[in-house]
Amino acid sequence: MKINQFSIIKTSPQQEEKELQQLHLLDQGDLQLEPTALWQKLLTRVHTASQEPAAIHQWFYDLLASPQQSLEDWFSQRQPLTDQIFYVIALQLLHFEAGLDFDPADPLAAINKLNMPHRFHDQWTNHDVVDAWYLLLATRGKNGQSFIDDLTSQGLFTWTYQLPAKQKPLWFNGKSLACFDPHKFIREVVYVETDQDSDFDGKADLVKAEIVRPADTEDGLKVPVAFTASPYNEGTNDKWGEIATHDVNQKLSHKPEGKAQSPDEMMPQLPQNHQKVNGEAHEASETFSETPGYTLNSYLAVRGYAIVYSAGIGTRDSDGLLTCGDYAQVNSMKAVIEWLHGDRKAFTDRSSGIQIKAWWCNGNVAMTGRSYLGTLATAVATTGVTGLKAIISEAAISSWYDYYRENGLVVAPGGFQGEDADVLCDECFSRTKRAADYQRIEGLNSRYIKAMQAAEDRETGSYNKFWAARNYRINFEHIKCDVMMVHGLNDWNVKPVNVKRLYDALQGLPVANHLILHQGQHIYINAFRSLDFSEMVNLWLGEKLWGQHSHADEVLPRVLVQDNVTPETWTPYQNWSRGQKLQYFFNKHSMVDTDAVPDNSGSFNDHQDPARFKQWCSHIDQWQRELVSTDNKFSIRLFGPTADHDTLLRGTPMINLRVASSKNYGMVSAQLLDFGDAHRLTISPQLINQNGLPLGYQWKYDNLREFKLQKAVTPYKVISYGHINLQNRHGAGVNSKLEAKQMVDIKLPLQPIFHHLVKGHSLLLVIFSTDFGMTLRGNDDITYTVDLGNSSLTIPSTVQLN
Amino acid sequence: MKINQFSIIKTSPQQEEKELQQLHLLDQGDLQLEPTALWQKLLTRVHTASQEPAAIHQWFYDLLASPQQSLEDWFSQRQPLTDQIFYVIALQLLHFEAGLDFDPADPLAAINKLNMPHRFHDQWTNHDVVDAWYLLLATRGKNGQSFIDDLTSQGLFTWTYQLPAKQKPLWFNGKSLACFDPHKFIREVVYVETDQDSDFDGKADLVKAEIVRPADTEDGLKVPVAFTASPYNEGTNDKWGEIATHDVNQKLSHKPEGKAQSPDEMMPQLPQNHQKVNGEAHEASETFSETPGYTLNSYLAVRGYAIVYSAGIGTRDSDGLLTCGDYAQVNSMKAVIEWLHGDRKAFTDRSSGIQIKAWWCNGNVAMTGRSYLGTLATAVATTGVTGLKAIISEAAISSWYDYYRENGLVVAPGGFQGEDADVLCDECFSRTKRAADYQRIEGLNSRYIKAMQAAEDRETGSYNKFWAARNYRINFEHIKCDVMMVHGLNDWNVKPVNVKRLYDALQGLPVANHLILHQGQHIYINAFRSLDFSEMVNLWLGEKLWGQHSHADEVLPRVLVQDNVTPETWTPYQNWSRGQKLQYFFNKHSMVDTDAVPDNSGSFNDHQDPARFKQWCSHIDQWQRELVSTDNKFSIRLFGPTADHDTLLRGTPMINLRVASSKNYGMVSAQLLDFGDAHRLTISPQLINQNGLPLGYQWKYDNLREFKLQKAVTPYKVISYGHINLQNRHGAGVNSKLEAKQMVDIKLPLQPIFHHLVKGHSLLLVIFSTDFGMTLRGNDDITYTVDLGNSSLTIPSTVQLN
Repeated sequence: MKINQFSIIKTSPQQEEKELQQLHLLDQGDLQLEPTALWQKLLTRVHTASQEPAAIHQWFYDLLASPQQSLEDWFSQRQPLTDQIFYVIALQLLHFEAGLDFDPADPLAAINKLNMPHRFHDQWTNHDVVDAWYLLLATRGKNGQSFIDDLTSQGLFTWTYQLPAKQKPLWFNGKSLACFDPHKFIREVVYVETDQDSDFDGKADLVKAEIVRPADTEDGLKVPVAFTASPYNEGTNDKWGEIATHDVNQKLSHKPEGKAQSPDEMMPQLPQNHQKVNGEAHEASETFSETPGYTLNSYLAVRGYAIVYSAGIGTRDSDGLLTCGDYAQVNSMKAVIEWLHGDRKAFTDRSSGIQIKAWWCNGNVAMTGRSYLGTLATAVATTGVTGLKAIISEAAISSWYDYYRENGLVVAPGGFQGEDADVLCDECFSRTKRAADYQRIEGLNSRYIKAMQAAEDRETGSYNKFWAARNYRINFEHIKCDVMMVHGLNDWNVKPVNVKRLYDALQGLPVANHLILHQGQHIYINAFRSLDFSEMVNLWLGEKLWGQHSHADEVLPRVLVQDNVTPETWTPYQNWSRGQKLQYFFNKHSMVDTDAVPDNSGSFNDHQDPARFKQWCSHIDQWQRELVSTDNKFSIRLFGPTADHDTLLRGTPMINLRVASSKNYGMVSAQLLDFGDAHRLTISPQLINQNGLPLGYQWKYDNLREFKLQKAVTPYKVISYGHINLQNRHGAGVNSKLEAKQMVDIKLPLQPIFHHLVKGHSLLLVIFSTDFGMTLRGNDDITYTVDLGNSSLTIPSTVQLN
Repeated sequence: MKINQFSIIKTSPQQEEKELQQLHLLDQGDLQLEPTALWQKLLTRVHTASQEPAAIHQWFYDLLASPQQSLEDWFSQRQPLTDQIFYVIALQLLHFEAGLDFDPADPLAAINKLNMPHRFHDQWTNHDVVDAWYLLLATRGKNGQSFIDDLTSQGLFTWTYQLPAKQKPLWFNGKSLACFDPHKFIREVVYVETDQDSDFDGKADLVKAEIVRPADTEDGLKVPVAFTASPYNEGTNDKWGEIATHDVNQKLSHKPEGKAQSPDEMMPQLPQNHQKVNGEAHEASETFSETPGYTLNSYLAVRGYAIVYSAGIGTRDSDGLLTCGDYAQVNSMKAVIEWLHGDRKAFTDRSSGIQIKAWWCNGNVAMTGRSYLGTLATAVATTGVTGLKAIISEAAISSWYDYYRENGLVVAPGGFQGEDADVLCDECFSRTKRAADYQRIEGLNSRYIKAMQAAEDRETGSYNKFWAARNYRINFEHIKCDVMMVHGLNDWNVKPVNVKRLYDALQGLPVANHLILHQGQHIYINAFRSLDFSEMVNLWLGEKLWGQHSHADEVLPRVLVQDNVTPETWTPYQNWSRGQKLQYFFNKHSMVDTDAVPDNSGSFNDHQDPARFKQWCSHIDQWQRELVSTDNKFSIRLFGPTADHDTLLRGTPMINLRVASSKNYGMVSAQLLDFGDAHRLTISPQLINQNGLPLGYQWKYDNLREFKLQKAVTPYKVISYGHINLQNRHGAGVNSKLEAKQMVDIKLPLQPIFHHLVKGHSLLLVIFSTDFGMTLRGNDDITYTVDLGNSSLTIPSTVQLN
């Protein structure tokens, strides 16, 4: 394995000693000891199982100092401390195994191989011991957590629970320690009043918020909040979603020329009445036992953050309708932040009018969460709401048009054919979970969903008012908070274009921002063994929400990317796509980077034999294999030259295509592949240890995970793709004229990439029409003709590696 | 879904009222109220989120009383209580959803469909209300737990944590309630001294035991123990196991005639020295934070059981070697029980000689755990050790010969080709995790493993002294504790023969026993939504370890079997295999149940083209498909008649075969299949809700699971199989003479079955040689000839259904 840590900050010797003393890991008198004796003392203090001399003795007796000697023996010989002895023990403390992870005869070789932070000295002084020990405590081990967090989860710091509230949190290397007792957390529910009436009952919508805060807040500590806006949190209607899913086996049709139609959706109104205030309570009257949570929040909870969840309008115990990402939903989440910041009312229940304030909050909020949750974090950020200091936007949608549509086409998120905005509303509308409440709202909600079905417009797939209302990019300029973005380069659900557009926009704004691109699909990365993501967040939020001066933005990489070739390799970059442009021109069956190729053309027909069509509809992998691996009649395959160097390909690949459809409508899809045999990373991270990552002492656990290399060799990997309606060549909201056999020029941007193409591999571009996994599937008998000589592929940035 | 509850006991009205009062769910005065008012009061008491009137009001307002009315409205009309209103609310309290799980216009239809325990009355009296409420509290809901456990995990009973220790546990319907505060658990480590020296250092082996016990034990409560013997618990050496795995692509060879050889293994010796006692401590000096646990134990922990884990000899922090199931390992686990019962010494650490007693234990122990863990429970039971009152033996090996061998052949557990006793030792020998300890024991351990490799004898696969030492069946007669057996009918890892032999033996012993057969592979069943397994255990152990008089053995089924056709269907039976015998005779390509068929014979050749052989070695599913679905040359396929009724087939199918090999050695394998298109149950239980099953309040969680019907239709399913060496036709330990082409009569028992064959399906018997998933794979050019006219298949018990 490899250790990748980006959250360690440079700390002065004085500060190191101060922090160690504060944690009772170093005594004033210790520095009078000889280095070896000092080290022995430091070691003794972290033996959490027992402080009895017999137990410490046994521990030293079982630690290996050299291939033939225990640490007990080594101590008995009163030798001077060396790099060798310090690090052979350090490796064992970090749970690395002799013979497996390191050779006890040469521990320093392992330090290098593991990429482990270290200090080497010819002669170790007392201060060297303290400094190296400090660094070791901040270092991550084989179990995916830093040594100090490991000790914390073994209970070494439970004494800090009793510290006076105002002395907390305790900071170690710029990061907050788990010194808040999870068994004393206060769980409460409040109902935040919004300024809108999205269920047309005349009253301002109330939204429920669930709060978990440390007991120390009762003793005067004011804490910041990690807030997750999750429409899923009050339950989902999976069966309903299934029923509502649309049939995608539909033919495309010709669209009348002109701007796309915008059928009306039902819009929330201003409330006629607000709740009358009848008094105020200091403590909430409603509690809860458990809510679906994000483990990163649980990690933060024991480190002094209040955690707040809200499912927003249209969910169980809240008012309103589910509106799929429009600003009614966004504002219901923003309202929670306004309450936390002291700018809005909330009540202890839904009817008594007893107000309650977030007096325990320091007014600073970060939003967390992935997918719909990260989407709402991004959306709330575009409101510029006061109090929101930072968002960690993971796998977030930045425009819903790019989630359910593309370039004038209905295009599904990968794996969710037939889903659409209305389906997601059905799935999340958890007011169904209160049967009488649902009985009262059912009729209205049905009318609302019907209007949404018209407004989302699956007929044309064009961009209209409905999608504009769910396009946060329009409001990117209003973002005032700092942003950490996390996205999977293989996320076919929320596609990378979403984060690329946010990243690009943020480069022009006066806010700090960081981007992490991983090799996963639609996943969380806080339990990866190879990356200190949670600690990065800890460091970052310490500065943003607690006002720590850790220089987090300078320490953390601007762009951090997981390599797709070598496991556990994370590399910082300055940007996503600056660099040397690469352009390929098209031959009959190949791409060449030399120059435009003389006139040549290709064609393909999109129709499949019905049996085959049916088979592929339910076995998309078979279609994919056929598409790429065979000399078929339904695509054009263009192989690029074999790479003679490892190369980094970055940015948004752009295809220029001159193409005609045999009918007066049509769509073109493209896939860009890394072609060449390789053991590639597993599609999903592999479980290393179920519940193997404790988030505190006797608290919650996460499953430790990591991508590994697949055992099997695979011949290729799709790295990018795109789809376009030939009538939308001038914009997704503009339906252009198209006649049968009319040659048109289209520009098709593919999903942005950050891809390491190894020497000996080549790019393969496949041009086709129906994408069985994402587009509508009309099985239409259309022939497409491509003027290859007037077409090309451009990749914005290439960097030659080694 | 369907509710299957077998743990509900009949309770008198007086007892019901007493238990409800004890839990503060019923007041003395309540019975003076009208039934409706009484019911309203009972409801109010279980609203855990808030006891504020406004919140209760809101709750009633959101509960649906009829298709057009909330419970709030219904109460306002002061109507008499009816079945309809009681159960439409009951369904909602159990988290069933209107429109999805029940029709609010006809809730009683759902009660039937869900198989929900209920009481109907024409006119509800006060006592009816209390009785129905009591039953409802004991009833399981949609989230896989009883209503009372649901309320417990919402925190309704945290006040019971403060009850005087001696008033605990609290019993509800014969089962212990979660009234022990998990945040106050005491975690301690002791070192139990055995009477053996398995690492030849002259000293009695010490084994580490990890204890979790309720704080109430400090206040005088003596508690029973759920003890799990798990060699995995101190860590595993997966990489080592991988390296040690044997190559199974080996040819069979001829064995010399006679009794199987028994090479010596290194046997543990009697210790020369025992630890000197230097004093005694009341409390342990060593603690721990976490140990890999079984969620059933965590469920029991908050219900008043101390939980003890030990990994036994040869694991981290213990002495000794890993011996793979022999009585040295078994006795090291038995020693822990002897200590718990007060019959053996333990120490606070490994060297000081400070003794410690299990003064907090009531002397009653149950063993729990699956696979190796359940195996050791079974094995310890055969020692008849005092204090062991019950074992829950899940997916347990009863003879290791049946785990790694079969009828004179090396046969792997399904999915673990090449594993053997020595490999498992390598995997579990966690003394590697203490590098210096391992350095001291490495040489000895290597010699031990080498001797084991000889003794286990992969050359002949015959039964010898090594396997006899790991055959607990020899000692079944010594079992004194009660036994609950759980096994998957599709467990190809620990095969069903293991539990069948234990079950059969127990029928002749004076101990209570229960058998649960499920449709899973090698899994736990305590988080199934459809079955109250944890509650069954709670009820059973309440009687066995606490001395409750709940008549658990009469209430719990003797044999409980999950149906393989209809999901969520569990049926009690009186026995496994009593019934009408079924015999099939063989035709050229079919089996007939009429009478012996005149002379006919078949033959097959075991050799495969090398490319195909190689492919199948790594893609066993392809071999399996080819074996069953094609008219191939390497097997004989015999189809039985099409079933004209649904039929239950039970017991151990036996094949009588007259067969010859073209060489002077050979093996025959057979598979019995259910042939016919069907949506079968999923191979593994599907996740319904990650961490969706709380085991207490703010405590641990399990993943709620259930088998569902597969979306795809499958043409067949293997339901049984067997393998035999032609030289072992007279016993696994007796190698008989065999000449090339010599016709011999063999009896091949297949794995025992309990299978529902549906009308229209048929049995298919396939006879072949190499089983790519389990046997050695020599790709030998052997032709087998079968005298079909003198062969047959017998199934001990058939029962015609409907």
